[in-house]
Amino acid sequence: MFYRHGMTDKAPKSTETDPKDFRPEARAPRGFADKRASQIAAERRLITAVSKVYEDFGFEALQTSAFEYADALGKFLPDADRPNVGVFAVEDDADSEGKNGQWMALRYDHTAPLARFAAQNWDGLPKPFRRYAFGPVWRNEKPGPGRLREFMQCDADTVGTDRPEADAEIIALAVAGFKAAGLPAGSTVLKINNRKLLNGLLNSLGVVDAGQQMGVLRAIDKLDRLGLTGVELLLGGGRKDESGDFTKGANLNDAAIAAVLAFVAAGNAERSVVLDRLAAVLANSPEGMAGLDDLSRIGATLNGLGVGEADAIFDPSIVRGLEYYTGAVFEAELLLETRDEKGELVKFGSVGGGGRYDDLVARFTGEKVPATGFSFGVSRLAAALALTEAGKASPVRGPVVIIAFSDSDMGEYFKLASEIRAAGIPAEVYLGRSGMKAQMKYADRRLSPAVAMIGGDELANGTVTIKDLDLGREMAAEISDNKAWREGRPGQVTLPRQEAINHLKTIVKSL
Amino acid sequence: MFYRHGMTDKAPKSTETDPKDFRPEARAPRGFADKRASQIAAERRLITAVSKVYEDFGFEALQTSAFEYADALGKFLPDADRPNVGVFAVEDDADSEGKNGQWMALRYDHTAPLARFAAQNWDGLPKPFRRYAFGPVWRNEKPGPGRLREFMQCDADTVGTDRPEADAEIIALAVAGFKAAGLPAGSTVLKINNRKLLNGLLNSLGVVDAGQQMGVLRAIDKLDRLGLTGVELLLGGGRKDESGDFTKGANLNDAAIAAVLAFVAAGNAERSVVLDRLAAVLANSPEGMAGLDDLSRIGATLNGLGVGEADAIFDPSIVRGLEYYTGAVFEAELLLETRDEKGELVKFGSVGGGGRYDDLVARFTGEKVPATGFSFGVSRLAAALALTEAGKASPVRGPVVIIAFSDSDMGEYFKLASEIRAAGIPAEVYLGRSGMKAQMKYADRRLSPAVAMIGGDELANGTVTIKDLDLGREMAAEISDNKAWREGRPGQVTLPRQEAINHLKTIVKSL
Repeated sequence: MFYRHGMTDKAPKSTETDPKDFRPEARAPRGFADKRASQIAAERRLITAVSKVYEDFGFEALQTSAFEYADALGKFLPDADRPNVGVFAVEDDADSEGKNGQWMALRYDHTAPLARFAAQNWDGLPKPFRRYAFGPVWRNEKPGPGRLREFMQCDADTVGTDRPEADAEIIALAVAGFKAAGLPAGSTVLKINNRKLLNGLLNSLGVVDAGQQMGVLRAIDKLDRLGLTGVELLLGGGRKDESGDFTKGANLNDAAIAAVLAFVAAGNAERSVVLDRLAAVLANSPEGMAGLDDLSRIGATLNGLGVGEADAIFDPSIVRGLEYYTGAVFEAELLLETRDEKGELVKFGSVGGGGRYDDLVARFTGEKVPATGFSFGVSRLAAALALTEAGKASPVRGPVVIIAFSDSDMGEYFKLASEIRAAGIPAEVYLGRSGMKAQMKYADRRLSPAVAMIGGDELANGTVTIKDLDLGREMAAEISDNKAWREGRPGQVTLPRQEAINHLKTIVKSL
Repeated sequence: MFYRHGMTDKAPKSTETDPKDFRPEARAPRGFADKRASQIAAERRLITAVSKVYEDFGFEALQTSAFEYADALGKFLPDADRPNVGVFAVEDDADSEGKNGQWMALRYDHTAPLARFAAQNWDGLPKPFRRYAFGPVWRNEKPGPGRLREFMQCDADTVGTDRPEADAEIIALAVAGFKAAGLPAGSTVLKINNRKLLNGLLNSLGVVDAGQQMGVLRAIDKLDRLGLTGVELLLGGGRKDESGDFTKGANLNDAAIAAVLAFVAAGNAERSVVLDRLAAVLANSPEGMAGLDDLSRIGATLNGLGVGEADAIFDPSIVRGLEYYTGAVFEAELLLETRDEKGELVKFGSVGGGGRYDDLVARFTGEKVPATGFSFGVSRLAAALALTEAGKASPVRGPVVIIAFSDSDMGEYFKLASEIRAAGIPAEVYLGRSGMKAQMKYADRRLSPAVAMIGGDELANGTVTIKDLDLGREMAAEISDNKAWREGRPGQVTLPRQEAINHLKTIVKSL
């Protein structure tokens, strides 16, 4: 059996069982999961709704292949120095022209494949190029609770324009997508920032050392958790936490600390107010003012698109994907609460994000092609939706099950199944070899709305017996006497064939 | 840059460019392809239609992970002795408990993952378990024209019943799925056979040598190409083709040759006639007669399900997946013609197939769990559909493009875009920085139905100018004079805002 080759180089031990008798353990690989019907249905609904919105905004669908050559992923790899860390990589065979095999890796996100696609097809594409993509991405990371190594991601990007309006449109798209998916108004907020603001501020303050700048970013990133006081300590000499652990600070001088704190505190207000506050803080920085102009044009566009203050705010404390983004950055935060592993209420947190990254295609072609985009995890958004009233999706219901009484009447059962299906109702004949009890249990497990029975009597009389399973369960719950239950046959009626099918329609309609 | 590590173990040569200046070639990996909007739309339509049918038949959706442990795929691998041949395999890291890393491989089809899933979850599943699956599968094979290493496959299986009725239902499902996908009646036929027939016949004839049996199967498999005369030669001493190449025969004796030819020639008639003919040929074989009983019950079920003779036939010459199937086998043949690489008309051929394989779950659990299923390639079926009148799908149309005249009016453009979208029409503001000509070219490339313009006059008057691009193209083709064309502004009207949006509705409705 091949499972011995390659995995270890040892010869099979004589104590091992005969390869023919080998029984592998049936288990999904570590960090991978199977999806059942209800989850698939919820994710499909989400994908359908969001795709419609994205296409309404003029974004076209694109599917790239699962693999990319590793050199094309390069810059986007989590650890570019170790090609196998973070991604699933294989070495391709040499091709027919005898060229050396090249390493390929499964895509880590949809951005890197878009970069490759855009560079490869640039001349023939409408420009700016707007596309959206749904599909699995793979990350070779340590799996954990809620942290899979394969998950569905959705991405929308505009490639080939440096206009801040393009950033605004991506934000409006995200807001409209979440609404179409079913998230109630006020349950998400897009937080918008621009890398140029803080860059400009730090440079104007003379904070040009890369390590120090990184320290400032790390400090700001902790605003949510530590508040302004904690951030202040981390901007200065450092901070000791409750356990006594000391975190080194960025060692800014007092004036710089005051300016950065004023910058960070400029949020939490209407978009126009935040712009005014930031203008005061950034007055001495041409780069900061340029970023502010971008932000202001994003605001004007959001107004034009009808994206209100509750849906999108300016937040100077947003620090995101620092190495990657070159201008606007945004993060979608879900405000609904959920319970953590300890059962405590916590905010759901980030459900997506994005920003402007302007060296996308240039890596391949040398030509600068500015781009901006937003992505979210489909399963994560579906999990968020499940927290809402609307998202408390009923489980997928099974088909009407036609009970198989007798082998010789199977043809009749199939005929009835076809008739029920022709009436628009999913239906199947029970195809196991077990008796009545197992068949009822089967229908129960499938969450079937009803079973249909045609025994000898029904066939002779041209009738069908229908048992409404939901009603039966309800009525059975009210009957304590087992004998009464059996005699009462709760939810069960015998009707002429066409009436029986109409009855099934009523049952299914009421689900 | 990491692309040097791992791929070759050589140190970078001094003549190589600075890693920072390295520009990878933008190309999809060998044998992988990108899908654009029109293809994606065609495949989505197909998947939606077929899923609906499969669910109506009581099959539930299931998505397994892309990877399986290689030992779980084992039996299903194209070459079980060499784990890297035929599949894309990676060695997983050791897990947190320090267990050795195990090999995983991307799924080769949906059957092996179903086997693993069913074995893993058997106790909790409704039985028989009926599921369908859509998704990419990966084959590490030499790519060629129309032969990709990643393609979408659709699979439906019933696990846990040995009833021939289950096979019949799978066949009916395939027939109904193809119809729902849009294939016209009479364009496909399901050809049904049963492994037990030929097995029984050969055993009753005393042809028990495995090599000889294989020779018979190979000969029968060539019926389409060589006709009965060719098959006769291959059943006997062998056959020399036009080029003089000699193919060794199965060396049957004359009586056996006659019996096998009678068996193969039993097809090409109504199902009941084929059953009668086969009964005569197989009279001396209990195994053959058992297979015939199965086939007869498949026929009765197809009758019950209303699957006619034009849609499903019995064909004793079908030889399919010999190592894999244990009973019924079926193949879906598309009868439409297409042109091959040389431009010659050829039958499209097989678009899917399946059969009964009864050792599916037993590999894992030791418990025999009979199963039957059918699968088809989504892209291949979409290609088949494209040959039909109905399938000559119009390409995906772009959004209404709002021309960007002036930076200061961008907010107005976005407002108009929102209004048009609110009317149910995809719309976008042009977001590049190019002039009018490039913007019209952009709308053209997107196959937009119309552009909307609000310049200074329109803003002052509360109007919108709409240019119907299809109409414009049509009219332009009739105008030979360039000046007349420009002055005539074909297909262009200026209307009050609400009327303009209504006009857009008319244009889009007529597409």
